Amino acid sequence: LPVTTIPVPLDRTLDAPYDVVVGRGILTELPQLLRERCPAHRYAIITDSRVGTLYADRVAALLIDAGLRAATFAFPAGEWNKVRQTWADLTDRLVETGVGRDAAIIALGGGVVGDMAGFVAATLHRGIPYAQVPTTVLAMIDASVGGKTGLDLPAGKNLVGAFHQPRFVLADINTLATLPRPHLAGGCAEAIKHGVIADRAYAEAVGSWARACLARDAAALERLVERSVRIKAEIVAADVAERGRRQVLNFGHTVGHAVEARSGYGLLHGEAVAIGMAVEARLAETVGVAEPGTRAQLLDLLARFDLPTVLPPTLDAADLLEAMRHDKKARAGALRFALPKTLGVMAQSADGEWTVEIGSDEILAALKATRAPDVSPTI
Amino acid sequence: LPVTTIPVPLDRTLDAPYDVVVGRGILTELPQLLRERCPAHRYAIITDSRVGTLYADRVAALLIDAGLRAATFAFPAGEWNKVRQTWADLTDRLVETGVGRDAAIIALGGGVVGDMAGFVAATLHRGIPYAQVPTTVLAMIDASVGGKTGLDLPAGKNLVGAFHQPRFVLADINTLATLPRPHLAGGCAEAIKHGVIADRAYAEAVGSWARACLARDAAALERLVERSVRIKAEIVAADVAERGRRQVLNFGHTVGHAVEARSGYGLLHGEAVAIGMAVEARLAETVGVAEPGTRAQLLDLLARFDLPTVLPPTLDAADLLEAMRHDKKARAGALRFALPKTLGVMAQSADGEWTVEIGSDEILAALKATRAPDVSPTI
Repeated sequence: LPVTTIPVPLDRTLDAPYDVVVGRGILTELPQLLRERCPAHRYAIITDSRVGTLYADRVAALLIDAGLRAATFAFPAGEWNKVRQTWADLTDRLVETGVGRDAAIIALGGGVVGDMAGFVAATLHRGIPYAQVPTTVLAMIDASVGGKTGLDLPAGKNLVGAFHQPRFVLADINTLATLPRPHLAGGCAEAIKHGVIADRAYAEAVGSWARACLARDAAALERLVERSVRIKAEIVAADVAERGRRQVLNFGHTVGHAVEARSGYGLLHGEAVAIGMAVEARLAETVGVAEPGTRAQLLDLLARFDLPTVLPPTLDAADLLEAMRHDKKARAGALRFALPKTLGVMAQSADGEWTVEIGSDEILAALKATRAPDVSPTI
Repeated sequence: LPVTTIPVPLDRTLDAPYDVVVGRGILTELPQLLRERCPAHRYAIITDSRVGTLYADRVAALLIDAGLRAATFAFPAGEWNKVRQTWADLTDRLVETGVGRDAAIIALGGGVVGDMAGFVAATLHRGIPYAQVPTTVLAMIDASVGGKTGLDLPAGKNLVGAFHQPRFVLADINTLATLPRPHLAGGCAEAIKHGVIADRAYAEAVGSWARACLARDAAALERLVERSVRIKAEIVAADVAERGRRQVLNFGHTVGHAVEARSGYGLLHGEAVAIGMAVEARLAETVGVAEPGTRAQLLDLLARFDLPTVLPPTLDAADLLEAMRHDKKARAGALRFALPKTLGVMAQSADGEWTVEIGSDEILAALKATRAPDVSPTI
């Protein structure tokens, strides 16, 4: 089977670097990859109730047919289950089933599964190996690089977690065939972000592939996943030399996380990030960081995927600001944002920082201005 | 103030190595050490209800007087509180008080506090810096080296956790003045272990210091802490080259952890380890690994500290074996033990392993034989 292998360099640990393997119909390669790169006495497949129904039996059968020991541990689907209680339940179930230090974990599912299974792997027996088998665009292009795992607390998203690198990531594009359309579009919001923060030509290409991607054209999706993973891996690698460079990956996320949390997770992560990018691009133009027109170009790209670009009317601007302050990125009380200069180029301050400090008044103004389309009432 | 500084090499991460600073009355050096080695926008002092009453106000006042921001977060004392719920409560309280990524944690207390505060530091915001201020012999000589943090699950001790290295450890011998005598003796059990696994002369010296240590003679305790930290640091360092060497640190702990868990934490960790060493030394003699008489020499050292060396009659041998199987050190179902050849020298198998696989029958026999003194009933 034709596959693309993208090496991910590591900056935080002495663990070996790993590969993201991308292809169509390559789920069958999983047992061999596990044997070679993540050998273990037994495998615990952690998944959620939705993905589990679709793929867990097939993955478990592939492993067992290959002579590997495997068992599935599913938890209820939904971001609101990415919490400490689910982690507690999973760790108890794994230990009670005899999953020891010689076991490994397979994270089968989307971003929530990756975060949860990754945190279980990071903490069980003080850390055991794991492999990621992402089944959403978001998990393939975002969670697959960087080794971030995390849980949400009542006060905000990903407030506890750990860095724990997988042994490999296997991204089978064919699993996207079952992905609901909003999740497909939401994942593409991160691909648009990759274009905005690093590569104008790629941003424009993603826009041109919108129709094909939403129709689940496997070739278009494969190109998108491959290019996005490369961009994220390059940025993470550059962060070794250029401390803080990876901050640009947070574009859209400071506002996006607050929107996601305050909407009670009624919005998908990618939808919240789309709104977040719209607000932060406005901020970038308001404070004079971005070239005029940058925001309009971004809105055009998001619109091609039918992604939301205005705040739901139920969300209060002051309340969102408060949520951002609680977010982990609030440093010494001040809020900082990664902002574009233009599509493909992010702003860097004179002192080398990849984020810009913004005052509360500007943030509140940008939030309020992004509440509804800029139309005057007609009489 | 005269201090001894012991460098701890690191084997698992790219973090900078750190020092264990040992001395008498050196708590006053804490603000300066924090400024130099663990700079942060604010400090969260995590402690338990017992140590908090004794030292938290003083430590907080030292920091505040030095112009640092500090707040105390106490949890109820006792090993049974080293659980996920306490971690959940602490992470919520820290986040709600605005402890962000720019904060650092100070672990003020014994081993339970070190494990809990260390796991909070390892996971809050995916990891923030921390410093250890141990106030027990056990925490000073054991938890201070290795970066292990962990929580207990219903199924066993330390089944979840993370490796997270402190920026420094400050061990003020004067804080041992308030340590209850059983905790003092329990900590010395680990010092005896250090002698058994690495240095016969030190094992004998610890025995000769028993009376002084139990009388809280600061000079004797300082020598013990300093030498034990050096031994543990050397073993951890040697593990880089000699993969698995640190397994010798588990002497007494495979049985000890099971005893501790099954006694409902009615025994201190050090007491359980003393019993564990007595059982495992018997095992070492039974299977022909240890020179005859090794166990008798060990029992003599433990007796000088009034440490227990037989299993409580309430504990069932088969039940303890089951608990060991659930322990994280059970690999592929088989139980392996780090065993002494003689005082100061640990056994190494022909294939270079520092642990020896032992069958269930031998383990059960050793457990049963260590239930009561070997005396025949008199008529």
